[in-house]
Amino acid sequence: MVHREPAEAAAAAAAGGETSISTQPPSSSQQAAPPPAVLVYKVGYPPRRSLATEFTSTLRETFFHDSPLKQCKDQSVSTKLQMGLQLLFPVLGWGRTYSLSMFKGDLVAGLTIASLCIPQDIGYSKLAYLDPEYGLYSSFVPPLIYAAMGSSKDIAIGPVAVVSLLLGSLLQKEADHDKDREEYLRLAFTATFFAGITQAALGFLRLGFLIDFLSHAAIVGFMGGAAVTIALQQLKYVLGIRSFTKETDIVSVMESVWGSVRHGWNWQTVAIAFTFLAFLLLAKYIGKRNKKYFWVPAIAPVTSVILATLFVYLFRADKQGVQIVNKIKKGVNPSSVHKIYFTGPFVAKGFKIGAVCGMIGLTEAVAIGRTFAAMKDYQLDGNKEMVALGTMNIVGSMTSCYIATGSFSRSAVNFMAGCRTPVSNVVMSTVVLLTLLLITPLFKYTPNAILGSIIISAVIGLVDYEAAILIWKVDKMDFVACMGAFFGVVFKSVEIGLLIAVSISFAKILVQVTRPRTVLLGNLPGTTIYRNTEQYPHARHVPGVVIVRVDSAIYFSNSNYVRERILRWLTDEEDRVSAEGLPRISFLVVEMSPVIDIDTSGIHALEDLYKNLQKRGIQLLLSNPGSAVIEKLQSSKLTEHIGNGHIFLTVADAVRFCTSKSMQEP
Amino acid sequence: MVHREPAEAAAAAAAGGETSISTQPPSSSQQAAPPPAVLVYKVGYPPRRSLATEFTSTLRETFFHDSPLKQCKDQSVSTKLQMGLQLLFPVLGWGRTYSLSMFKGDLVAGLTIASLCIPQDIGYSKLAYLDPEYGLYSSFVPPLIYAAMGSSKDIAIGPVAVVSLLLGSLLQKEADHDKDREEYLRLAFTATFFAGITQAALGFLRLGFLIDFLSHAAIVGFMGGAAVTIALQQLKYVLGIRSFTKETDIVSVMESVWGSVRHGWNWQTVAIAFTFLAFLLLAKYIGKRNKKYFWVPAIAPVTSVILATLFVYLFRADKQGVQIVNKIKKGVNPSSVHKIYFTGPFVAKGFKIGAVCGMIGLTEAVAIGRTFAAMKDYQLDGNKEMVALGTMNIVGSMTSCYIATGSFSRSAVNFMAGCRTPVSNVVMSTVVLLTLLLITPLFKYTPNAILGSIIISAVIGLVDYEAAILIWKVDKMDFVACMGAFFGVVFKSVEIGLLIAVSISFAKILVQVTRPRTVLLGNLPGTTIYRNTEQYPHARHVPGVVIVRVDSAIYFSNSNYVRERILRWLTDEEDRVSAEGLPRISFLVVEMSPVIDIDTSGIHALEDLYKNLQKRGIQLLLSNPGSAVIEKLQSSKLTEHIGNGHIFLTVADAVRFCTSKSMQEP
Repeated sequence: MVHREPAEAAAAAAAGGETSISTQPPSSSQQAAPPPAVLVYKVGYPPRRSLATEFTSTLRETFFHDSPLKQCKDQSVSTKLQMGLQLLFPVLGWGRTYSLSMFKGDLVAGLTIASLCIPQDIGYSKLAYLDPEYGLYSSFVPPLIYAAMGSSKDIAIGPVAVVSLLLGSLLQKEADHDKDREEYLRLAFTATFFAGITQAALGFLRLGFLIDFLSHAAIVGFMGGAAVTIALQQLKYVLGIRSFTKETDIVSVMESVWGSVRHGWNWQTVAIAFTFLAFLLLAKYIGKRNKKYFWVPAIAPVTSVILATLFVYLFRADKQGVQIVNKIKKGVNPSSVHKIYFTGPFVAKGFKIGAVCGMIGLTEAVAIGRTFAAMKDYQLDGNKEMVALGTMNIVGSMTSCYIATGSFSRSAVNFMAGCRTPVSNVVMSTVVLLTLLLITPLFKYTPNAILGSIIISAVIGLVDYEAAILIWKVDKMDFVACMGAFFGVVFKSVEIGLLIAVSISFAKILVQVTRPRTVLLGNLPGTTIYRNTEQYPHARHVPGVVIVRVDSAIYFSNSNYVRERILRWLTDEEDRVSAEGLPRISFLVVEMSPVIDIDTSGIHALEDLYKNLQKRGIQLLLSNPGSAVIEKLQSSKLTEHIGNGHIFLTVADAVRFCTSKSMQEP
Repeated sequence: MVHREPAEAAAAAAAGGETSISTQPPSSSQQAAPPPAVLVYKVGYPPRRSLATEFTSTLRETFFHDSPLKQCKDQSVSTKLQMGLQLLFPVLGWGRTYSLSMFKGDLVAGLTIASLCIPQDIGYSKLAYLDPEYGLYSSFVPPLIYAAMGSSKDIAIGPVAVVSLLLGSLLQKEADHDKDREEYLRLAFTATFFAGITQAALGFLRLGFLIDFLSHAAIVGFMGGAAVTIALQQLKYVLGIRSFTKETDIVSVMESVWGSVRHGWNWQTVAIAFTFLAFLLLAKYIGKRNKKYFWVPAIAPVTSVILATLFVYLFRADKQGVQIVNKIKKGVNPSSVHKIYFTGPFVAKGFKIGAVCGMIGLTEAVAIGRTFAAMKDYQLDGNKEMVALGTMNIVGSMTSCYIATGSFSRSAVNFMAGCRTPVSNVVMSTVVLLTLLLITPLFKYTPNAILGSIIISAVIGLVDYEAAILIWKVDKMDFVACMGAFFGVVFKSVEIGLLIAVSISFAKILVQVTRPRTVLLGNLPGTTIYRNTEQYPHARHVPGVVIVRVDSAIYFSNSNYVRERILRWLTDEEDRVSAEGLPRISFLVVEMSPVIDIDTSGIHALEDLYKNLQKRGIQLLLSNPGSAVIEKLQSSKLTEHIGNGHIFLTVADAVRFCTSKSMQEP
């Protein structure tokens, strides 16, 4: 609320805030001439809100800041119902305006990503220590569910490299995939089920923001590390090594590789692998150079598979020690409801693994969804996406699929191939279905080496060195986090890398909330602007006044620090002032513009500060407290302690008060 | 760095920042007249810091913000050594100037707190399910160590109610104090040892700020709940109930009380207990009414003990069913080094219990230390205090003590009795020693009921209903946290209450970092000040411009929210503008003064925002980015995207740019 004080209205002209014209020398602000006429604004007290209003507005801002039900307002019940259904199944919305021209785009895109996903699926299922058909199953059911429930138009659904690797290495700890085959498989479905439950629950409870707690830097590091680990794992297939370590760290892998260099490598395999790897990388390069040729890298994998399979078949290279896929089960996904553990000790294990993999899957899918939504300029509701992804994995877990999510590389291809709606996923799914029904036997002679090459060329893109360089440039601490996660994955294991990424992210948040910045403000000569003296070295100290800005809410987590830090600024300034023989400090102005909120601990800290200053004979002044802050200062009666006359709208007003005071007491 | 642009120096007079005199009507800021002569300040680019400087300054601010070694700078090695020793043992500092007049104060204070602590110690050890002598032991050794190492002048060291209760209920879960007496005792010493290790480690690693993560509100609730629980536990002694529940929740306790109402209560016990409880409360009331009589409540407990013991002895009331202490072991603390578990399964349990109790002990001690330090205006180094408290508990665990810390009630008495230095703790410790050596047999006939009354009257002060009322007034969410912790302790258990307190505190931090406030700014008519339109309803929108202030650093945890929220402000404003038939929005100003920092996620969010706005034909302008922010914007080349000409020192400058632009394109 603005108070105009008639008594003062005639005075204080330039005082209309941070205001005073001056082409004069900088010392003008220290001149004591009583300032001429104008309005004086005082700090506004916001209208008092009731408890219910306050509560609901906090809840809304935290969980429903995007007002997901905005459109439903002021509608009839049947319309609301229809809209609600449409919110859950966006297909009911875009489906009505779907046209043939859109289908053309989706068909091309769907065929392209299908040709990309089939060899990848077979390879990724190996990362999860599952038989190849499970990868294909996971590219059939989940995309269909997503097409009905998802709201991203560009995402391509299916198994992805990092989640497969993570799932595999977490499952392997609980059950051996060689010895306890059945148990391992059941645990995989259980984990998938709980991954879906976790995802759907996060979305439904609108806790989607939790995935934002993994920092960008940590994700870049983790993904890069996982990509390197995955590529290293492929050395087994690419070099044709028979006895390979079960560890994923670089040291063990390299030992396996060197250890088998004399007798374990198979030159035919190596020749096939590297020829096709070169071909794939070349295709990738061509696609990158000219966006028009995006289809070259997209169809390169399936071409390689066909050529390599033909080659092996014609020359019977499998007799020469070239390992082949040998068998993929024919037929559509069998039910797996009975395989999910709903009781027993495996439930907790499955839940833990599922929750971790589910969160990582979400992080990846939501990041992809957001990227492409921003490119095509449509809004994406993260929480709704999570419900869609969760449902898709729950259904998946009952139809022999393991965790599916959005794939970076395939989504990019989908986008470039001109997809228009999630129908491209349906097309892909149909192709996968046909593959399962008809042509799986043809994969018998496909060499494992070619799958390894395809995976290596696919995951290379996850090593985002450009992002790492940018992080290095922007924030060194972030870079440390990024490298920590990267080396954690590469030298230890995926779980350790993930743990490092999460810990560093949390540590950063903790530091952020306990150690907010405080800066010393000075006057820019010739103006009434006050700015950080470090950033603006020309900013001048006001004699007898210390001005400190607190750049954060003052909460229990930082209130002691803030109080101590302000006092330290004061002590430092007192030292400087006495060393330079300047007048002693008699005012401390705390600029509170950035202090968005304060709690009881913060109020105690301010009170302690006030008392401490009183003892030293220094007056505490506040400048521009925000609405939440002024309200709380008032209800705790702190404004009365400090004095309402000592709270100002701007730093300039406060400084003017100080200088006029010090003039009065010579 | 301030740039003065000669070309513009002749122009833009009022433009000298948020500056323009006006006694004219508010619309002045929308006039397009080119502003007259003056200096133009540009956003300052701070001098580039090297990686090492940046790294060390972050480390220093996080861990050494109080520059603990400041005095040691520029000193000879021997002086440094001496100063280092003195840092560790402050007694070497104040000891040199210790005088007789100081000792007088300390003697009186020491005797007073000794008379208070002896009956309390005996009672508190019962809360921890330990024999009474262990309470006395813990008031002998730890205060001596603290006197040499601690830096608070007012804290009174010894066992305290809440930690005793917490320790007892955590230990009881691992070993039964009745059946496995020896194991229980050993585990108690192990927990004490690890509590000390935890405390010392936190202090030594300068991680003391971690205890700030328990919010004030949560502590108030937890303490209040613990006090109620402790008082309820005393009903056993006060009513003379023989079969009492082992649970601590109010429901079980009340069942025990009602269940034994007919045959279990002992009227002689009840009479003694309530007579003395009335006496103690009256003494407390007198002390509160007139600070001069602070000694009345201080000596009331020991007086009660003497009178009640005499009464029981003379009338042989113990034959009437009045329970008595019966036996306290005579003699000084025996060694207990051999009782601490250093190997085996109890180490982990002891560590867990010790860490929790140690943290709570620290919270209490540091809060007390800070309170009294602020009253007497001296500085307290929290981390140094932790090292002192930790060492004291480590030594304590080896000399048959259980966890000691600072006591709220005794420290207050110590302060009021005029203590000057930690010597008052030494005096108290000496009195306790004499008690152990000489008069423990005299406690034989002390009725348990009187100890119960003393504890009830002591813990009543922990129910800080005034603080709870203030919390209710200041912050409703905080109040919910406070009540959650309170009811958690009272209705469930101390651990559950503590868990609730910690969870709520963390949830608050999470919400704080994920949902920062953003506000819409408007112009205060007649000035060039821009303020929150909600707080200042008179603030006016600038036609065609939306001004949003972001009140937080933009980090990975909130970058998506910030971007979406800014866009929502824009959409809302667009709706309003089109409804009112006003000119369309063509500029979005983001006021960044409160944005202290930004990371790569934040930069991506700004970039996305910029691209999104470009598509809508809206220009993004930034106002007053801080030094860290402008540096990062520049190194990520985002300043080039947005255009250096679109980054301003003040909102007023940015708005002036917008209005002159819209004038050019009619």
